[in-house]
Amino acid sequence: MTDATAKPDGFYFEDMPVGRVLHSARSISMDRDRMIAFAAEFDPQPAHLSEAQAAESQFGQLCASGWHTGSATMRLVAETLVIARGGMGLGVEAMRWPRPVLPGDTLRVTIAVLAARPSRSQPGRGLVTIRTTTFNQHDLPVQELTSVVMMPMRSAG
Amino acid sequence: MTDATAKPDGFYFEDMPVGRVLHSARSISMDRDRMIAFAAEFDPQPAHLSEAQAAESQFGQLCASGWHTGSATMRLVAETLVIARGGMGLGVEAMRWPRPVLPGDTLRVTIAVLAARPSRSQPGRGLVTIRTTTFNQHDLPVQELTSVVMMPMRSAG
Repeated sequence: MTDATAKPDGFYFEDMPVGRVLHSARSISMDRDRMIAFAAEFDPQPAHLSEAQAAESQFGQLCASGWHTGSATMRLVAETLVIARGGMGLGVEAMRWPRPVLPGDTLRVTIAVLAARPSRSQPGRGLVTIRTTTFNQHDLPVQELTSVVMMPMRSAG
Repeated sequence: MTDATAKPDGFYFEDMPVGRVLHSARSISMDRDRMIAFAAEFDPQPAHLSEAQAAESQFGQLCASGWHTGSATMRLVAETLVIARGGMGLGVEAMRWPRPVLPGDTLRVTIAVLAARPSRSQPGRGLVTIRTTTFNQHDLPVQELTSVVMMPMRSAG
């Protein structure tokens, strides 16, 4: 379910029990020129810079930098899992790119709660492990990301 | 050692024994306006969008999106560890941001080889686990990244 509108003050720890799955309300289109510009700034490797260079690369075709895919995924996560005041991402436990993102692909995400527990060091907050899967328009996964976010507890007031 | 110039055809598996450490030849400056523009596109959360919004956030001050730091790190890695034809990143095993990246910080990286073994599925290639630490101008770590890259073996010709 995607019910950001039902939580005007954002999601709390209690809103993310193990097994809950959120879906992004929209998809993001990976524009060819933006892909190339991102790569020129951050990941200037042949597969990401031009069709001609990519044809000679391991990938054989122009595809997005994994960091561009990760950043586009962050945008969808930020819109889907709006964390209440006092929340933040703590880090990434794993990130994989099982297939390339091609020009014109449109990406959406699902966010599944894998684990949730109260913080030992910060009373009133909890740590939630989420698995974010990024799908292309063919419903095939292009990125699998496991990360941990700290979320405030509603019960802490 | 940073000896990309000594390897005009890029690094091979054999060039990355366990314990080797590479250092980026330069640093990247994290410009305030670029930080905000990156966040507006990919990570529109209060701590990354303006000084005023950040002051009210968990961080208390404007800081870069972790994905911006990760992408800037990728740029330095791409310049430092130029992999010979047939190489590619396979994924991330862990990424953490121990302290914020602030406007005007300059980032550099070290890349340390944690493990190296021949690929079981792809003869003539090897898998190298690297730990990339991103430091600010105070020599304090702002990102710790463990990832795996596939590299061709020189001996495979």
